[in-house]
Amino acid sequence: MQGQNQQQAYDRGITIFSPDGRLYQVEYAREAVKRGTASIGIRTDGGVVLAVDKRIRSPLMERTSVEKIHKADDHIGIASAGHVADARQLIDFARRNAQVNRLRYGEPIGVETLTKDVTDHIQQYTQVGGARPFGVALIIGGIENGEPRLYETDPSGTPYEWKALAVGADRGDIEDYLEANYEEAADLEGGIELALRALAEVNDGELRPESIGMATIPTETETFTEVEDDEIDSYLAEFDLLAAEEDKESDESAE
Amino acid sequence: MQGQNQQQAYDRGITIFSPDGRLYQVEYAREAVKRGTASIGIRTDGGVVLAVDKRIRSPLMERTSVEKIHKADDHIGIASAGHVADARQLIDFARRNAQVNRLRYGEPIGVETLTKDVTDHIQQYTQVGGARPFGVALIIGGIENGEPRLYETDPSGTPYEWKALAVGADRGDIEDYLEANYEEAADLEGGIELALRALAEVNDGELRPESIGMATIPTETETFTEVEDDEIDSYLAEFDLLAAEEDKESDESAE
Amino acid sequence: MQGQNQQQAYDRGITIFSPDGRLYQVEYAREAVKRGTASIGIRTDGGVVLAVDKRIRSPLMERTSVEKIHKADDHIGIASAGHVADARQLIDFARRNAQVNRLRYGEPIGVETLTKDVTDHIQQYTQVGGARPFGVALIIGGIENGEPRLYETDPSGTPYEWKALAVGADRGDIEDYLEANYEEAADLEGGIELALRALAEVNDGELRPESIGMATIPTETETFTEVEDDEIDSYLAEFDLLAAEEDKESDESAE
Amino acid sequence: MQGQNQQQAYDRGITIFSPDGRLYQVEYAREAVKRGTASIGIRTDGGVVLAVDKRIRSPLMERTSVEKIHKADDHIGIASAGHVADARQLIDFARRNAQVNRLRYGEPIGVETLTKDVTDHIQQYTQVGGARPFGVALIIGGIENGEPRLYETDPSGTPYEWKALAVGADRGDIEDYLEANYEEAADLEGGIELALRALAEVNDGELRPESIGMATIPTETETFTEVEDDEIDSYLAEFDLLAAEEDKESDESAE
Amino acid sequence: MQGQNQQQAYDRGITIFSPDGRLYQVEYAREAVKRGTASIGIRTDGGVVLAVDKRIRSPLMERTSVEKIHKADDHIGIASAGHVADARQLIDFARRNAQVNRLRYGEPIGVETLTKDVTDHIQQYTQVGGARPFGVALIIGGIENGEPRLYETDPSGTPYEWKALAVGADRGDIEDYLEANYEEAADLEGGIELALRALAEVNDGELRPESIGMATIPTETETFTEVEDDEIDSYLAEFDLLAAEEDKESDESAE
Amino acid sequence: MQGQNQQQAYDRGITIFSPDGRLYQVEYAREAVKRGTASIGIRTDGGVVLAVDKRIRSPLMERTSVEKIHKADDHIGIASAGHVADARQLIDFARRNAQVNRLRYGEPIGVETLTKDVTDHIQQYTQVGGARPFGVALIIGGIENGEPRLYETDPSGTPYEWKALAVGADRGDIEDYLEANYEEAADLEGGIELALRALAEVNDGELRPESIGMATIPTETETFTEVEDDEIDSYLAEFDLLAAEEDKESDESAE
Amino acid sequence: MQGQNQQQAYDRGITIFSPDGRLYQVEYAREAVKRGTASIGIRTDGGVVLAVDKRIRSPLMERTSVEKIHKADDHIGIASAGHVADARQLIDFARRNAQVNRLRYGEPIGVETLTKDVTDHIQQYTQVGGARPFGVALIIGGIENGEPRLYETDPSGTPYEWKALAVGADRGDIEDYLEANYEEAADLEGGIELALRALAEVNDGELRPESIGMATIPTETETFTEVEDDEIDSYLAEFDLLAAEEDKESDESAE
Repeated sequence: MQGQNQQQAYDRGITIFSPDGRLYQVEYAREAVKRGTASIGIRTDGGVVLAVDKRIRSPLMERTSVEKIHKADDHIGIASAGHVADARQLIDFARRNAQVNRLRYGEPIGVETLTKDVTDHIQQYTQVGGARPFGVALIIGGIENGEPRLYETDPSGTPYEWKALAVGADRGDIEDYLEANYEEAADLEGGIELALRALAEVNDGELRPESIGMATIPTETETFTEVEDDEIDSYLAEFDLLAAEEDKESDESAE
Repeated sequence: MQGQNQQQAYDRGITIFSPDGRLYQVEYAREAVKRGTASIGIRTDGGVVLAVDKRIRSPLMERTSVEKIHKADDHIGIASAGHVADARQLIDFARRNAQVNRLRYGEPIGVETLTKDVTDHIQQYTQVGGARPFGVALIIGGIENGEPRLYETDPSGTPYEWKALAVGADRGDIEDYLEANYEEAADLEGGIELALRALAEVNDGELRPESIGMATIPTETETFTEVEDDEIDSYLAEFDLLAAEEDKESDESAE
Repeated sequence: MQGQNQQQAYDRGITIFSPDGRLYQVEYAREAVKRGTASIGIRTDGGVVLAVDKRIRSPLMERTSVEKIHKADDHIGIASAGHVADARQLIDFARRNAQVNRLRYGEPIGVETLTKDVTDHIQQYTQVGGARPFGVALIIGGIENGEPRLYETDPSGTPYEWKALAVGADRGDIEDYLEANYEEAADLEGGIELALRALAEVNDGELRPESIGMATIPTETETFTEVEDDEIDSYLAEFDLLAAEEDKESDESAE
Repeated sequence: MQGQNQQQAYDRGITIFSPDGRLYQVEYAREAVKRGTASIGIRTDGGVVLAVDKRIRSPLMERTSVEKIHKADDHIGIASAGHVADARQLIDFARRNAQVNRLRYGEPIGVETLTKDVTDHIQQYTQVGGARPFGVALIIGGIENGEPRLYETDPSGTPYEWKALAVGADRGDIEDYLEANYEEAADLEGGIELALRALAEVNDGELRPESIGMATIPTETETFTEVEDDEIDSYLAEFDLLAAEEDKESDESAE
Repeated sequence: MQGQNQQQAYDRGITIFSPDGRLYQVEYAREAVKRGTASIGIRTDGGVVLAVDKRIRSPLMERTSVEKIHKADDHIGIASAGHVADARQLIDFARRNAQVNRLRYGEPIGVETLTKDVTDHIQQYTQVGGARPFGVALIIGGIENGEPRLYETDPSGTPYEWKALAVGADRGDIEDYLEANYEEAADLEGGIELALRALAEVNDGELRPESIGMATIPTETETFTEVEDDEIDSYLAEFDLLAAEEDKESDESAE
Repeated sequence: MQGQNQQQAYDRGITIFSPDGRLYQVEYAREAVKRGTASIGIRTDGGVVLAVDKRIRSPLMERTSVEKIHKADDHIGIASAGHVADARQLIDFARRNAQVNRLRYGEPIGVETLTKDVTDHIQQYTQVGGARPFGVALIIGGIENGEPRLYETDPSGTPYEWKALAVGADRGDIEDYLEANYEEAADLEGGIELALRALAEVNDGELRPESIGMATIPTETETFTEVEDDEIDSYLAEFDLLAAEEDKESDESAE
Repeated sequence: MQGQNQQQAYDRGITIFSPDGRLYQVEYAREAVKRGTASIGIRTDGGVVLAVDKRIRSPLMERTSVEKIHKADDHIGIASAGHVADARQLIDFARRNAQVNRLRYGEPIGVETLTKDVTDHIQQYTQVGGARPFGVALIIGGIENGEPRLYETDPSGTPYEWKALAVGADRGDIEDYLEANYEEAADLEGGIELALRALAEVNDGELRPESIGMATIPTETETFTEVEDDEIDSYLAEFDLLAAEEDKESDESAE
């Protein structure tokens, strides 16, 4: 009880440290990320793969409106997990920065530069009072100088570079799978397979195409490309991950 | 008790997350939406149908002043549910944005663009301190590039696209009815019938024309059109949903 | 007790919703309206009638200084109930808007437009922090395009249009009387009679001219006109509502 | 106890209403007015009389520095009761407005206009946060279009017009006396007599000239005129209200 | 206990009244004045005398740095009691105003005008939030139109004019002495004697020259003049108030 | 308990001192520094050595993205410990200041000047409200006028100059080792050896190259130089500090 | 207990007085001064001596970086005690003011003028909200018009002039020693001896040169001059105050 009361005393204002040097509001924002369905990023020699779990709460909702993968620039895509409205703010911020870079320097923004612009923006919301932190994590992937790059932004405003990662629900289980199965030298299809198998790992081993979103930024084309539904369907069939039709009903109620 | 006390600690400021990553003030704003009578949006091949339950608290109040359907632009209509004064602010915001778009680009604003302008505006009120969230949900429907589009904005500032949806009181029951009976390929009258039957479903199977508001944005004309009272009366008669006169008295007391 | 404590937790800041989606400060501002004596508005074919109960606390106070009916523009009058100083702010706001409209567009402001300007102003005080809501309700009546119009603004910033209404103390009882006796097709004198009889209904059936304020905006003249004391006296006599002199003493102590 | 606790919850911030629609901080500011000694205003056909009780706390203090009657313009005087430093702010505000009116329009400001300028200023301090209300009431009297006018401003920012009134300590008793003895058609000396007799009523029936302040604005001259000490002495003698010398000592200790 | 708790509830914010209409923070600032050693002002026909008790806490501290008498302009002096750093702010404010008056109008500022400039400044700190009141009282004395004038400013921002007064510790006892012994028609030396005797009254009847500060503004010269230490020594000897040397030690420890 | 409660009363706002003159929020920010892995700085005649413990939480995370050593200018490097996102803000601040110095004065910024720019910036966040202190300590090293210089910034905003120091976890143990083994006259390789041995001291005597980051600013070249992984590997082998491969697994889980 | 609770109620905001007229936050800032090691200032006919106790926490820390004596201008030095980062802010403020004075008036700033600029700055942080007071005391010494001057600034913003003083830890004991042994007519070396003997008095009668900082501003040269380590060593030997080597170890741990 004592411990609990003490914690409560430090976790309500973003502008204070707890006696053990923690920022509780930032940690709670990380919980908001975990409340969102999972998003995955894979970096292979062939390019970057972004894959997201986009379960929708009703068959009447348009799947495309559950936006978890966004094009930030021709050569950069962003997948998000967590508080959706917060994600939109950061995506808009990233797009504006990418655009300004093209206008000002006549060249595409670097993936790392864009990531750090975003994390600097996020950090401000953890130090200066009058606003809450962003309850969202982003996976920012793209091609920079011919090389695929893959970054994460977390609610504290720290940038990390990854070979492969997951954010959102079941992050731990998915990352265990990725660590065990990741191969950097894979081609893009290898990355797609890894992403789908990792997602299936936390979905009873099978997936329905309509609850998957996917995009790639191939090293060759350097161009953000959404993977169409029928392609996803083909991949799932190919990898033997396609859910039987009768499972559909029960899943729809969850979000 | 313990749990209740803890909740109370995090739900009074919009700028803080609870330990489980929730924003209580946004969730309470959703309750404000539920306190409003229902509004329905239906998208058919023939266009968008907006229908609202506009019970009035006195026979001396002008029905037209219970504004739940608004014209945002020639080709876009908005239905609202929840805190009426808040809705007016967002409608005004949407109208100004639509107008500015025409002035600046010489063309009508896209339904999706308008929706996202509104949700970005809403999100700000959930992150930056000094104000409360908007206690209202909007259904934004219109024609974009010859296609009917139908969106929802919620108090967190998240945009969703729908084939058919309800906001406000009895949302759950109405959506169940819509899911069971929706047909996308329907013509506009089919959409009108679905909207009225869904409303009747939560009104003991019958409706009085004076407590219904309705508007359409037909795909053909691309023009927001209010459905007149006598037309509503005809539709109700045609669909056998017309309330008997003797029921009137008792309903009037409710709001 | 538990319920009471919980309520107290949400009712002290205007910028927060209660768990059931209510804005307590707005509801308390409505209580401030009820603390004021009643004001009535009647719309007839012949024009708009505004009538107010203006009991004064001392025979030495000038009756004219208890201002509950205000001329907003040549063609628009406003009756108020509730916190007097707040009412003055809104009246001034309305007058300035009416004046600006004449200057900018060279024509009188519409009654509905004026009402919505006022309610938008009121709503801001319910959402943005640092100030309290306005503790006043207004009845705004006038002629627009040759038609009498009658509106209400409440402390939440919602506009309503009415055929006849009351705000302030005894609103419920007066509206019951109005609903039972209202006839839209009445001429202006019919409206005056209805207003006075409704006021008498909550004053033991009789009224003293000096505690009544009244103004009309006739459809024909489109001009705000105060009803003089002797005219009120004549009306009361005509409708057999004139209080006997001996009743005066006791009423004066109440406010 | 319950009631008391509840009250305490709403009376510490000026920007909130209590559940019964009251503004406690404004009501407490009214208590600050009652802590000040009484000020009286009388309107007669012959002009306006202002009279104040200005007991001083030491014989070494200059009586003239206990300023309770102020000249606002040639034709307007103001008497105050309550928090002295607050009164000075409002008097300065009134003087500046009177001056600006002369400069801008080339004519003296109206008594009613000046009063409403002041009350609008007061109201702002009761609605917008970051400051407390003014703890003072003013009696504003003067000649407007050849007619004597007499107004009151209270801490809520409401203007009242009076024939005769008192503010500050013993307001109730003095007003009872005024109501019983007021005659509008009196000449200026009649007003002076009434004011002094009313003050004496709450001072054991006798007054000392040095604790009285008095000014008139005669209808004829339209000019604010302080009544000199020896004149007051003569009036008190004439009306048989002059305190015996031996009473002096004991009164001096009170304030 | 109940009473004490209630008081605590209203005394922590300067922007609120207590239920009995008091401003506790202003009253506590008056306590800060009482914590300072006494300052005295005497007005005689011959001019104004300012005298202060300036005990220092160590023989190594320069007596001149314990500044309690300040020259505000050639013809005006100010003595202070209370929070020293606050006093410096007000003195600087007064000096700037005096200087500006000379520049703008080419003549020395009036003593009353300067006092009211200062009290208006003080009042702002008692009404608008975000700062505390000034914990200091000033005695402002000088010659205006050939007449000696003597004023007090208190922490509420109220100006008083005096014939003779004390502020700070032992105010009550010193004022009793002044009231009993004051003679307005005295010459300047008579004022000096009264001031020193009043100070001695609360110092066991004797004074040491090094703990006295004194200045005069003679009516004849209209010039602020510090009284030198040897002059003070002579006066004390003349009036038989000079402390014996052996008393020095014990007094030095007090402040 | 009493003591604990009292502490809690002063540690939640950065703008207040505790009764014993401490700033708890600054002390808690120091705890945030201790939560970070260690960083070491060594100054030798041959130049400055920066070495950091950069354990990563997953083999899929890019080691380079765990940025604990930063180039601030050609001749200055910075190592950090503590809250990563905060460190990025200060590094950016330092880089901008270094750049501005070159532009404005045409010469490289001094190491001491840069350090004090940073600490002044940090101090502001400990005195002015509305933000929390920076939860990070920096080691700033470089060459100034041909001399190696080494500084520390702490969360209070105090600059210190060191011969050798550690910040972050195990600071005490590492500094004990440094004090016992430091030799100022060492060459750069001597500094590298000392740094690695000190790090090994708190890592069971052995290190893995991939969890070490290192950079030097040699006195001769005056140029910030990252030490490549294979060089680190060689050094570890040379100093017999290389961890056996089987230890890898277990360490990876810690952060 | 009651007393303690009451104190706690007033000591957390700098903008409020306690019921007995104290500013607790300023008093706590004085405690922050006492937490710093002692600084001493001595004024002699030969000039000003500043001496500080600068114990360092590690032999690896550069002694010069423990800055307690600062040159403010050619003719003015400042010694500080208390919160180091706060001291740096005030020193920078003083230096800027000294520089501006030279630029604007073409002459060196007066010591008193500079002191009062600093104390005015400090006072603002004790009256206006949103920041905490400065937790530091300064000794400002220099030559003005050929005369040595010595001032103190405390956290309340009060300036004092001294012949000799100490701030920081053991202030009381050191001042006792100074009072007993001070001779104003001493030459500069006499001042140095007094300062060192006073410091030794609270250090078991002996001092180590490396933990002493010293500077002089001789009346003759009017130039701030740091006393070199070997000179301090000579002085300590001359005055028989030199600590034996074996004492070093134990002292180093303290700060």
